Amino acid sequence: MTLRSVYLAGPEVFLSNAGEIGVAKRALCGEFGFDGLYPGEDGGEVAPDAIYRRCIAQMRSADLIIANLTPFRGPSADVGTVFELGYMTASGKPTFAYTNDAAALLERTQRLDSRARFDNNRQCWTDCDGLMVEAFGLFDNLMLVYGLAAPVVARDVPSAERYTDLAGFRACLELARRLP
Amino acid sequence: MTLRSVYLAGPEVFLSNAGEIGVAKRALCGEFGFDGLYPGEDGGEVAPDAIYRRCIAQMRSADLIIANLTPFRGPSADVGTVFELGYMTASGKPTFAYTNDAAALLERTQRLDSRARFDNNRQCWTDCDGLMVEAFGLFDNLMLVYGLAAPVVARDVPSAERYTDLAGFRACLELARRLP
Repeated sequence: MTLRSVYLAGPEVFLSNAGEIGVAKRALCGEFGFDGLYPGEDGGEVAPDAIYRRCIAQMRSADLIIANLTPFRGPSADVGTVFELGYMTASGKPTFAYTNDAAALLERTQRLDSRARFDNNRQCWTDCDGLMVEAFGLFDNLMLVYGLAAPVVARDVPSAERYTDLAGFRACLELARRLP
Repeated sequence: MTLRSVYLAGPEVFLSNAGEIGVAKRALCGEFGFDGLYPGEDGGEVAPDAIYRRCIAQMRSADLIIANLTPFRGPSADVGTVFELGYMTASGKPTFAYTNDAAALLERTQRLDSRARFDNNRQCWTDCDGLMVEAFGLFDNLMLVYGLAAPVVARDVPSAERYTDLAGFRACLELARRLP
């Protein structure tokens, strides 16, 4: 198999041990014959526009993406990661994803929003602002679901390991290895 | 000027009057010589995969995007909208955005997360989970900023009109009209 490069998207770049996670992810990539491109490694850039350009360059050179779509500061995934997922989808590259919270979007929202309720007039669930909550049983907004090359790997992980557990990431590598 | 089509991305599709907002956005597009493609109009599809395919088809046919990046269920923008922003960026089409909350990401996070604090060891702001909060003074994650064809239109809008106020949207149309 040709060595293929994987863009490693996820909010773990914000952890205090972001570098270690990157080393671990890249090592796992190596086990599966992939080259991991991790945006959280210290490249010397501190200016945000330089970081943006580096991430775009890494995505352009990558053959596929594995995105960590674990909920981040709310019921949904990290927006930086989601931007990258959309970018790679439009680039026609295979996209894989995992989440360390297996609950559906409605349940996630109910957990965080005590005012989420079923609106009998609209016949749908709504949040504290009165906006509809998608209740399709999907893990997140539907746009994050149907472009994936394989179904999301969804696992429940203890909250302390929510951003560091890599079993779902490994499962994505298994799926990616089966690519033709 | 040739009539150009604009993909109208934003969480207003979840409002009870999503259809009205779509009519208003499309009317504003018409004033500026654009054709608005609004994903929230009832097209008869109820299945989420059909909605996904319709949104992708609309983006492919659109010449540009105007994204409503107002915070949604947390400090950051709606992930569906952000996926679409990344998609259009990779498609090489001009991207414009507005937010009806002008605060920077750090201030937005501080508002919602009482445990956000400055970590003296790491010399950065962190959230309740110990993850770094970007403190670049940007309105959201840096990936949402530097691909835009013009700076984000950021305005503070009373909370009741947060998802319906269209002044920022109109300002994006003004910017888009200047495109060569």
